[in-house]
Amino acid sequence: MSLLVIGSVAFDAIETPFGKTDKIVGGAATFASLAASYFFNDIKIVAVVGDDFPQSEIEDLQKHHINTEGLQIKQGEKSFFWSGKYHNDMNTRDTLVTELNVLGTFDPIIPDSYQDCEYLMLGNLSPQVQQTVIKRLTKRPKLIVMDTMNFWMDIALDELLATIKLVDVITINDAEARQLSGEFSLVKAARKILTMGPKYVIIKKGEHGALLFHEDKIFSAPALPLAEVFDPTGAGDTFAGGFIGYLAKVGSINFDSMKNAIIYGSALASFCVEKFGTEKLRNLSQEEITARVQEFVSLSTFEI
Amino acid sequence: MSLLVIGSVAFDAIETPFGKTDKIVGGAATFASLAASYFFNDIKIVAVVGDDFPQSEIEDLQKHHINTEGLQIKQGEKSFFWSGKYHNDMNTRDTLVTELNVLGTFDPIIPDSYQDCEYLMLGNLSPQVQQTVIKRLTKRPKLIVMDTMNFWMDIALDELLATIKLVDVITINDAEARQLSGEFSLVKAARKILTMGPKYVIIKKGEHGALLFHEDKIFSAPALPLAEVFDPTGAGDTFAGGFIGYLAKVGSINFDSMKNAIIYGSALASFCVEKFGTEKLRNLSQEEITARVQEFVSLSTFEI
Repeated sequence: MSLLVIGSVAFDAIETPFGKTDKIVGGAATFASLAASYFFNDIKIVAVVGDDFPQSEIEDLQKHHINTEGLQIKQGEKSFFWSGKYHNDMNTRDTLVTELNVLGTFDPIIPDSYQDCEYLMLGNLSPQVQQTVIKRLTKRPKLIVMDTMNFWMDIALDELLATIKLVDVITINDAEARQLSGEFSLVKAARKILTMGPKYVIIKKGEHGALLFHEDKIFSAPALPLAEVFDPTGAGDTFAGGFIGYLAKVGSINFDSMKNAIIYGSALASFCVEKFGTEKLRNLSQEEITARVQEFVSLSTFEI
Repeated sequence: MSLLVIGSVAFDAIETPFGKTDKIVGGAATFASLAASYFFNDIKIVAVVGDDFPQSEIEDLQKHHINTEGLQIKQGEKSFFWSGKYHNDMNTRDTLVTELNVLGTFDPIIPDSYQDCEYLMLGNLSPQVQQTVIKRLTKRPKLIVMDTMNFWMDIALDELLATIKLVDVITINDAEARQLSGEFSLVKAARKILTMGPKYVIIKKGEHGALLFHEDKIFSAPALPLAEVFDPTGAGDTFAGGFIGYLAKVGSINFDSMKNAIIYGSALASFCVEKFGTEKLRNLSQEEITARVQEFVSLSTFEI
């Protein structure tokens, strides 16, 4: 019973009002699998890097119980690279560089040993690649969670809709939910997206928390109010990884377990933004996570 | 032991994507006192109108246990009038007309029978007028709640700061909290505002709920996700009125009672936006309010 994570494993160069990095390790699959590793220890990734990707970084993933058999290393090619600069509000950013490199021709090959996958996290990637992964699994996973972004709505809407039809949970931010549904009200947007296939829709609202929609039920999760957001890169992937990692751990899939999964995912994301890239995600303790989750409890509890 | 509400009693003309009104009754004190009337039945208002304000509307306030002895009626003058048009997102609006009329020279006279006031709601008005009310009360109320807006930060910052120093609770929206504090992070903004005088800071985030700050404690209240926001006018005043009305009812002032007060205030505000102006606020039942508050409970409850 494993959790399969697909997505990019890549380099980022980030500039925020707090500082600037050279190329550091990033990518949706990196953030998501690291986050999930705090809950679950049978994680497998399918991704692709070039021969510029340091072996030590791969070993670091392995130390987090992340199986990298499905991580393709393309000799003579370069890893995906993204560079961006955040504005003062940390909610908006400019993309400075996007070099697809190995990601441009990524064929997600699933090792045989991965076919026991029960939980599938489709990190942000082209919807065609996401769909290929689903089709290559001989048995449909118990739970498929998909993350995506506006970029795919702009350039590959039909493929995106075809992939959305196949998943159980979609995570999407508020602007993207509006774009995908054509509805401004997030309630109407979520209702429309629920008719597209997924049984659960999670709308991520950044500093305003997240909304979970299922049938006619809604759960509103707070975000931890932070004095400082150092680097938001990867927060959404971390949220998704923590979310599915927690579900894989508890093994039950229903509205109540998803509520808790959102709180755990949000807790992991709140750590992620405290440092550049994956730095903070590499050395968390269970005590820190438990204490952070308790902050979410005190933050949102009232007795009426 | 009464609740004194000051603010405008006025006319609004509103245009939203759903429709358009002629002059209808609005004003911060109208919304706030109507909202408070569902919790508490000793409410007094201090406000001013012209002789164009219908007697039937004054009688309607009285039917809600609102004492209008302090409502001045200026013969030969006109009531405050505001006209605005909401954009499709309902979060932004253009002011089309602002006619101060009687509000331009408003001298808030406190009737002797109002001097028993224990709870004071300073609805959005010039900070000078707000401060005059505090000074004219022979005994400081047990709780002073103040609402304000960016307009006063732009044109009367010193007077605003002097008034803020005198109150217990300030309610302010997120953009205004940022403007007032010069901090982008709402945590930092609230901490700074807490040093300006108030013991409690409430940051209203519209469709994203509200944050309550007190000492080093934070409470995050959800907003009810609504399929349709018909008219947001007065939602903030309604929130403030429901908030202080609930506190006056329960009679205890602490972080826990304020949390509940925020939920009740949010519930009232969620009704307010369902129809134009004060329409929905005039005929609510206690059953409707209880059911709405229960929606907030289910919306935000999780068991970890």
